[in-house]
Order: sequence, then C-alpha cells, then structure tokens
Amino acid sequence: MISDVVDYFQTLQQRICSELERVDGLAEFSLEVIEPPNGGMSRPRVLADGQHIEKAAVQFTHSIGPTLPPAATERNPHLAGLPFQATAISLIVHPQNPFVPITHMNLRFFIVEADTPLWYFGGGYDLTPCYPIKDDVVSWHETARQAVGEHYGKFKAACDEYFYLPHRQETRGVGGIFFDDWSEGGFDASFELVRSVGDSFLPAYLPILSKRKDEEFSEAQREFQLYRRGRYAEFNLAIDRGTKYGLQSGRRVESVLASLPPLAKWVYNYQAEPNSPEAELTEYYLKPQDWLGE
Amino acid sequence: MISDVVDYFQTLQQRICSELERVDGLAEFSLEVIEPPNGGMSRPRVLADGQHIEKAAVQFTHSIGPTLPPAATERNPHLAGLPFQATAISLIVHPQNPFVPITHMNLRFFIVEADTPLWYFGGGYDLTPCYPIKDDVVSWHETARQAVGEHYGKFKAACDEYFYLPHRQETRGVGGIFFDDWSEGGFDASFELVRSVGDSFLPAYLPILSKRKDEEFSEAQREFQLYRRGRYAEFNLAIDRGTKYGLQSGRRVESVLASLPPLAKWVYNYQAEPNSPEAELTEYYLKPQDWLGE
Repeated sequence: MISDVVDYFQTLQQRICSELERVDGLAEFSLEVIEPPNGGMSRPRVLADGQHIEKAAVQFTHSIGPTLPPAATERNPHLAGLPFQATAISLIVHPQNPFVPITHMNLRFFIVEADTPLWYFGGGYDLTPCYPIKDDVVSWHETARQAVGEHYGKFKAACDEYFYLPHRQETRGVGGIFFDDWSEGGFDASFELVRSVGDSFLPAYLPILSKRKDEEFSEAQREFQLYRRGRYAEFNLAIDRGTKYGLQSGRRVESVLASLPPLAKWVYNYQAEPNSPEAELTEYYLKPQDWLGE
Repeated sequence: MISDVVDYFQTLQQRICSELERVDGLAEFSLEVIEPPNGGMSRPRVLADGQHIEKAAVQFTHSIGPTLPPAATERNPHLAGLPFQATAISLIVHPQNPFVPITHMNLRFFIVEADTPLWYFGGGYDLTPCYPIKDDVVSWHETARQAVGEHYGKFKAACDEYFYLPHRQETRGVGGIFFDDWSEGGFDASFELVRSVGDSFLPAYLPILSKRKDEEFSEAQREFQLYRRGRYAEFNLAIDRGTKYGLQSGRRVESVLASLPPLAKWVYNYQAEPNSPEAELTEYYLKPQDWLGE
C-alpha cells in the first residue's frame, strides 16, 4: 500500500515542479534529498525569486517511525508501540503578481502496520487571492468538484471551516476542498480519490496563474498583497494545526515553515476604502460562498 | 490601589511617546481613545513610517470585568464571580536602522476586589538586536540591574526563558528582565519596583536608539533585518502566551497584533556566512549569556 502512494506522491511532486518552472520561465526548484537514519526520505524543493513566482515550496516526505507516539494511540490503545509510516506531498505558491492567488495543496497517507493495518488519507487544496476574480474562483471550484464528485459539498465545507481565522472573522481565502481521516470505500477507492485530487491540482491552478501573471498592477496593489500575506502568516503561525504539530514535534523547521510568505507587511488598523476591491475581498470573498450556485 | 497604577501607566505612556517622537523628529503617535461600555479605557498609540522608527506601538489599557472568568479562578475558587480590574502599558519599537534593536516592554497590574483583595504585578522589558553591539547590550542590562537591584538575576533568567523560540533553539533577543505574579513585600514595595522598571525604560533604550539611528547600512543588512523580523513574528504569533490569550479571548485584534513587524521576510534555509556578524548573532548573542560578568 505505502509504496504505491510514495510513488504517486513523488511523481506528482516532479510533475508539479516541472510545470511551475515552465510557466515561471526563469527560476528553478532546488533539489535536496534528506535521508534520516531510520529510513524514509524527504525531498524539499523550493523555488525563489522567479519571474512570476516569488516563492514556491513543493515538498515530498516519507517517514518511518519505529513506534507510534502515545498521543497517536489514545483512541487505539492496541496499536501502541507498533511501527508506522507516513508520506505526504505539500506545496505552497506565493506568486509575484497580486492578481495571481496564493495556493496550497497537501496530500498525506498514514499507516500503522498491524495484522489489520490502520490507515487513512487526508489533504486537499485551497486558493487565497488578494484581488479575486470571480471567474477564477468559480473555475477553481468547478475543477475541484469534478475531481471529488459527490464528496465536493462536504469537502468544500470542511475547507471553509479549517482555513478560518477566528480573530479576523474571515476565511484564509476562497477555499477549495479538504478532507481528513479518509478511508471510505477501502484503500483502492480512497487512493483513487486522492489521485484524482492530486491530478486536478495543475488543471485547477495553472490556467489562473497563466491568465493573470502578466496583469499590470500598481504599487498600492503590491502593498495590499504584502498586507494580505501578513494574514497568511497569521494563519500558518497562530492557527494551523499542521504547523503547530510540526514545530512541537521537532520536525525540520525549514520544511515546516517553508509556507511562510517571502515578504509580508502588517499595517496597524488598516481600513479598506468603502466599495473598493480591497473591501469586497473581506466583505464577500472571505465569507464562505456557494461558488457553484448549487 | 488601582487608580495609582492607572495614573502611573498613563503618565508613562505619554512620557515614552513624547520622547520617541522627539528622537524620531518626523512622525507622530496617533491618539485614539476606546471606552468600552462596562467602564475602563484603552488608549492605543501608534507611530508609523518615521525617520528612525518604522513602527512603534505604545498602548495603555484599563479594563473592568464584572466577573472573573472560570479559568482565572481555578486556583482560587473563593474568588469566582467577583469583579476584577486590570491595567497595563505595553510597547514595541521597530526601528528603521538595522543597528538599532527592536525593543518591547510590558507592565501590568491585576486585582480582584475581595475583602482581602488579590492582586499582582507583572512585566519587564527586552531587547532584540539583529546586529548587536556588545556595549549596547551591556549598558541595557546594567540599567535593568540598577532598576531592579537584587532581583536582577532571577528576572534576567525569567526573561531568557520566556522569550525563547524552541523550534529555532534561540532566544528572541539578548533579553532583559521579566517577572510575573509579583506581590513581594506588599503593594507599596511592589509598585515601587514596577515604577523603577518603567522609569528605567527610556534611560535603557534611548541612548542606544540615539547612538545607532544614523549608522550607515547596506541593502544586505536591511534584508537581514527583515529576515530577523520574521523570527519576531514567529515568536509573537506561534509562541507568545499573551498574544495567544489575546486572540482567543476576543480582545481588540489590532491592539493584540500591533507588535508585529511593519515588514518581514522569510528566506528558505538561510545560512549565515561562517564568522560573519549574522552568524555571531545566533551563535553567541541569542544564547543566554552573563552580560554583566557576575
């Protein structure tokens, strides 16, 4: 089971890196391979200061743990002390142009090797524009719905719920799909669903990146982009469970924090002009909406 | 008791704002007064885009709570349901010049009005340079030691312990003094100690600001400053208990997050040149040191 998932995530990482390099046309992803002594492998790949991509991190990890940590076995005490494996691909893209949204994807698989193995998938992708264009948001969600079919409604709601900043009372972006603890229909069906999500990422994001990367923008729009990236940092550092767990569990800090923006701004008590695109962002786009009019 | 502390914190806020404006020579602090319906008052004052100060926030708050929240009375169940008051001054300075350290101060007083009132002070100040100059660090700690006398060793150690980023294995800066739950010697002695800390802040910081604000610096040094401000944001958003509590308890978010840097940078896997000032920062200055050679 695990080796098929490992193969798929590795191939997907390569495919996404190649395509992002091609669209960027200038910068290339670093290629680093980290092999921990107890087996497994991680391959963080980062692109910086591109023509269109200011920073992108596409990371593959496969970890092998000799024994499950106690916190992970509270609900399943019979699994205590057993070996486990986990593999994941996770990515973030911080574009240069304020009209291109930030995007994030994560797909993961976890397995405990017992007589009856315990395993599940999780992940999803979401989009964080600072100057959203309605057509882009709708096409993003349409691609997501095609990828997950009947699960779209539930996954879309889970995404809106997870990527939420309670202290700002706004979603991180315009959402997408998100699922966790997923094993519905058995391994083959679950893995097929995860591949469908992974394979749909480039078709969901590349058209938006390609269409908007050359839009003209003003200095003020660039400033607003930096300001909105501050919110992204707030979510990732103060709210995100994955980051919190990553930092506390002593994972490689540069990998855990690779999602942070290349440059971000905080402005005290910023107020958008009434009826401006900046106001529309928080008043409309950053509240959960039924983008596909269902 | 509370009114003397309120008066002192308010006066100190005005004094610090005036002095920072004088040294900056260009920008002025905003003046906003917020009066919640249940009494109390907060007065956040923020200066932005100064000649020497990129952002400073000096905030006074006085809050009156009708009943103590349950979490606050776990250790003192006989206080449940009683009214309380809290007052604080807290400040942050993000300078323009990379040779001027960031500084932070917080002083606070909390009281529950019972037959035998329960009260304590807390606070302190700390310094976060990105290009530390040894003399500045020593003079900062000398002023702090003069302010708190015999308590210096204990307060200095508490500061090193609190302002620590476990995921980076480094202190936030070169420290200072920090204390909490303080009522030693009764109200008069405690308040005198707190006044001594508050009164020593400007003598500790202004000489460093004045001496270093016109130092020449390169573009690369400015970039390193932005990079180090990323660490500051990491501490405040991911580690700091005050921020966490402030965000969770629904306090005014712009006040809670006023400490965040005006502009910050994250660079994937940054490595300082061996033997450079950038390397010396983390290898020497951001490990607790006995600055006064005691």
